[in-house]
Amino acid sequence: MGFRKNIRRVTPYVPGEQPQEKVIKLNTNENPYPPSKKVQETLAGLNPAKLRLYPDPAATKLVTALADYYGVSQEEVFAGVGSDDVLAMCFLTFFNGEKPVLFPDVTYSFYKVWVELFKIPFSCQPVDENFKIVKTDYFTPNGGIIIPNPNAPTGIFESLTVIEEIVAGNPDSVVIIDEAYIDFGGESALPLIKKYPNLLVVQTYSKSRSLAGLRVGYALGNKELIKALNDVKYSYNSYTMNEYAIELGTAVLKDEAYFKESTGQIMETREWAKEALEEKGFTCLDSRANFIFAKHERVPAKEIFEKLKEKGIYVRFWNDERIKDYLRITVGMRVEMEKLLAEIEGILA
Amino acid sequence: MGFRKNIRRVTPYVPGEQPQEKVIKLNTNENPYPPSKKVQETLAGLNPAKLRLYPDPAATKLVTALADYYGVSQEEVFAGVGSDDVLAMCFLTFFNGEKPVLFPDVTYSFYKVWVELFKIPFSCQPVDENFKIVKTDYFTPNGGIIIPNPNAPTGIFESLTVIEEIVAGNPDSVVIIDEAYIDFGGESALPLIKKYPNLLVVQTYSKSRSLAGLRVGYALGNKELIKALNDVKYSYNSYTMNEYAIELGTAVLKDEAYFKESTGQIMETREWAKEALEEKGFTCLDSRANFIFAKHERVPAKEIFEKLKEKGIYVRFWNDERIKDYLRITVGMRVEMEKLLAEIEGILA
Repeated sequence: MGFRKNIRRVTPYVPGEQPQEKVIKLNTNENPYPPSKKVQETLAGLNPAKLRLYPDPAATKLVTALADYYGVSQEEVFAGVGSDDVLAMCFLTFFNGEKPVLFPDVTYSFYKVWVELFKIPFSCQPVDENFKIVKTDYFTPNGGIIIPNPNAPTGIFESLTVIEEIVAGNPDSVVIIDEAYIDFGGESALPLIKKYPNLLVVQTYSKSRSLAGLRVGYALGNKELIKALNDVKYSYNSYTMNEYAIELGTAVLKDEAYFKESTGQIMETREWAKEALEEKGFTCLDSRANFIFAKHERVPAKEIFEKLKEKGIYVRFWNDERIKDYLRITVGMRVEMEKLLAEIEGILA
Repeated sequence: MGFRKNIRRVTPYVPGEQPQEKVIKLNTNENPYPPSKKVQETLAGLNPAKLRLYPDPAATKLVTALADYYGVSQEEVFAGVGSDDVLAMCFLTFFNGEKPVLFPDVTYSFYKVWVELFKIPFSCQPVDENFKIVKTDYFTPNGGIIIPNPNAPTGIFESLTVIEEIVAGNPDSVVIIDEAYIDFGGESALPLIKKYPNLLVVQTYSKSRSLAGLRVGYALGNKELIKALNDVKYSYNSYTMNEYAIELGTAVLKDEAYFKESTGQIMETREWAKEALEEKGFTCLDSRANFIFAKHERVPAKEIFEKLKEKGIYVRFWNDERIKDYLRITVGMRVEMEKLLAEIEGILA
């Protein structure tokens, strides 16, 4: 039958494995700590009878809480089902030109999937030998720009001076800074949204807020961009955020102390683990994220990856030319990193 | 600045109002009864600490429960964030031809929004003077077909014989039957998916399961269609269903008694309210949904709509040529319908 010819064929994104057994899971950049106690408290006060009603399509409560938290107006905040949903909406909303959308060649692998899905012309700009983006590559005619900062899977943070130059130098493009990992030592481009109407900053609850399971992401930008995003969102699905995402997502912003403490702890563990890895012959990039990108001087990354997996420790490895020497290791709790290091010692021996 | 030229401009779907005050809400086809007690029980057993982890991207637990419930295999079920998410994915996945996608002119208004969003050619096939679809209109060359059964906002159910003829007569098209309201007295096309590889049936938890606030919808169809949908889903957002949608969505299927009782009660109230409305000079279409589509012999629908709103009773009215004489009234609890009828009596007096 001919119905097959009109089916969209895509190469889907492959997420990191989600093993159901008891393993040490350092492969998808989840936070090792539980979410704030505010989540449990709020949950206890929610009435499931309310679920019979549609949620507020504008997720006003959550959007207002985010606006207050970041000191912007409600009209400058867009919320979605994780930052993947927000970013997919952004691609669909802002990248409709004929010129290529630009992003680094070594970056979040979903970008390439979205441009394929939505048939958007694109160009991958190679990062340099130190995995740094080359600023001048982004001063070429384009239909939009997206750069993660810190970048994934390298963890490298680019200075706001460079980010601002790129935003300022591309007034004809929407420039998206994907800040999924910003809360682990980077500096957000958020203050620049007041100055540049073409800048959008995207963040998520999945890493620093320990709420990957809740699916909450958001974009911050000037009113015009946010309105365009909302128009597309309302044309796709009016009610994307369920009752729990709205309520628990609002509650978690009210525990700054725990947020600072847990992200601080992760940064401390990261620096400690990085040093310990380096003592074992690894080179680690300077990460401002909740993971370490590391290559060993002697043993291939693939071998370490596979042997760790046998031992019940999951890290991430890509068999891609430019990064095949590296492992991406999520920063877990200190005790998990100690077990990782012990197993690595055995593998290297 | 020129960045505006690449922004996708759309006319977004306008959902029914979600007033925050205490009103009688008969405007968005929500279920008047709370969800099954299984929801509360399951919620009490969930550990918020688990939210730090990404949910299962395949929502295996929910998909398996749905497969068991409907007597199909896991590979024949796709789950999404409400049936709007499922349907939007379907439009993106299956409607990529050059010929027009066909759907009735009087129907769920989101279809027109999706074809515009994804730039899909389409043709609205006029329903007849009794709001019935004209079967032969669907035997013309097309790039896909979507028909809601029962239809919205009329509530009219089309026989499975006609549905099967349309599916069988269009082997070169994916035919989607949108069964959002099927549990209120209709007969599902589900058994036909074994016979027709081009048929997809879409249903939702938002009406008959009293879980509009949870955002769960699903598609049932042969493996090949479900795989194509999953590929597109994984290219859009790997993790669409949050932990609560998966867990509570699974639990609610385990309370068939309550499901039968509450949907039965709504059908009973519907038939009673329909008769009461007819006694007051309304003509009501024969509804197999949880709403009544009614027109008064004398007083314009718009006037009744506005006056009811002043009294704190929300129903739905569209200022569209073909349906501007009608009100769509969600079937609430008996006591709500009594209040509605009392206010209508005052308005008509």
